[in-house]
Amino acid sequence: MTMKMRIVLIGAGRLATNLGAALRQQGQEIVQVYSRTMASATALAQRLEAAATDSLADVVTDADVYIVSVKDSALAQLLPELCKGREEGVFLHTAGSMPLSVFDGYARHYGVLYPMQTFSKERLVDFSRVPLFIEGADQYALDMAETLARMVSGEVRQLSSADRRHLHLAAVFACNFANHCYELSAEILERHGIPFSVMLPLIDETAAKVHTMSPREAQTGPAVRFDENVMQAQMQLLAGQEQARHIYEEMSRSIYLTASGLQEK
Amino acid sequence: MTMKMRIVLIGAGRLATNLGAALRQQGQEIVQVYSRTMASATALAQRLEAAATDSLADVVTDADVYIVSVKDSALAQLLPELCKGREEGVFLHTAGSMPLSVFDGYARHYGVLYPMQTFSKERLVDFSRVPLFIEGADQYALDMAETLARMVSGEVRQLSSADRRHLHLAAVFACNFANHCYELSAEILERHGIPFSVMLPLIDETAAKVHTMSPREAQTGPAVRFDENVMQAQMQLLAGQEQARHIYEEMSRSIYLTASGLQEK
Repeated sequence: MTMKMRIVLIGAGRLATNLGAALRQQGQEIVQVYSRTMASATALAQRLEAAATDSLADVVTDADVYIVSVKDSALAQLLPELCKGREEGVFLHTAGSMPLSVFDGYARHYGVLYPMQTFSKERLVDFSRVPLFIEGADQYALDMAETLARMVSGEVRQLSSADRRHLHLAAVFACNFANHCYELSAEILERHGIPFSVMLPLIDETAAKVHTMSPREAQTGPAVRFDENVMQAQMQLLAGQEQARHIYEEMSRSIYLTASGLQEK
Repeated sequence: MTMKMRIVLIGAGRLATNLGAALRQQGQEIVQVYSRTMASATALAQRLEAAATDSLADVVTDADVYIVSVKDSALAQLLPELCKGREEGVFLHTAGSMPLSVFDGYARHYGVLYPMQTFSKERLVDFSRVPLFIEGADQYALDMAETLARMVSGEVRQLSSADRRHLHLAAVFACNFANHCYELSAEILERHGIPFSVMLPLIDETAAKVHTMSPREAQTGPAVRFDENVMQAQMQLLAGQEQARHIYEEMSRSIYLTASGLQEK
């Protein structure tokens, strides 16, 4: 049995693009895409064979579910106008850091559908492996979040707003900060005319290792063995790159403290 | 045509274990393994069907090549005794940070064979994809380094000692520091009873993305869009974890400065 729902996407960014494509692939109907600018609403609506609008007043009132994927700072501003007159629908936001309660006083049925992944518009991810974390203010909203989530992913968990904040913080470390380490690495290579592609096998293996051992067990390098000569010499290579040097220092100290068991847990 | 060489491994750590296994797989003979402790010399020697010793005086004098994979701090100490009386052999070290000149005055034929990868004893990597960087003090040593390197890997490049130091520094960022970001992520999850396995698809995608776009283009998250509310709230979640909070602050600042073009290059 397949449930067919009328879905509206509020927001047309990277997350909406990937989630919309995954829902469309499961035969769901995306009836409309709203974005602040008509250009981005249209760009995504065309990919999903949906209508486009840049006016909240024109968002259809009879959708089953409104999936709200906008910048955190825009979310609270947009809800009063969006929810009004659409009380029969279920409202789901997709943000790791925003609590369920952001909907309080605006919507009747509401919840959260947080896909923990890093998205690009150009590169659609395989949604079936994306862990989805759901929450609902009432059973109806929770069921809706779960139904949508299970359509697109095999990894669905219920999680409270409080725990989701910590999950999102953990994702910032594992994704955004790890990627920034790649970026700083790329800058060093670039300054010495070495192509970044030589680093890819190491990056891949570093990620692959933590599938079979903990990151703590997987750690190697000068800081974990507290090789002061190498660390001093590497700090000197970073003279003039103050930001990278601060990061080198903080990371090395933290790696050493963790490895030696001196780190506060 | 296959050249068969008599190889001695000086050191029995993670790198020696992986390189030794790769050479053995190519039909090369590892005649002997030296380590400071007999236990680790024996453990690796058995895997490679080689003899084991914990005495430099007992290292054979007629090997074609001595591959020295010991801690940087031990390397210079060990060379005078190791090289003496073995002047016909080629000496290769495998360290990213040590210059070729560490052999000056001790060996006649010497060079570097630096495999840029993170190794474990338990998990043998596919050496054919490991980038190897070689250097030689004379043509004989360079040829030996290249011959060995091409036996085990399809990615062999010649690189000067000066550039190799920067390459190694870049590897510390892309591997050790990225892995420490995983570790800090794992600690946050552990405190909230969430299994680290939920983070693996995100870690994999973060690594996969930089195969098709630059790390700068791939960056997402609160810091790159300078979402101050999220960043402030996440800093508060880290109250009590001072080291992690320092890293959060430095990384966020650096991501923002880079994205906005304000970072010194």
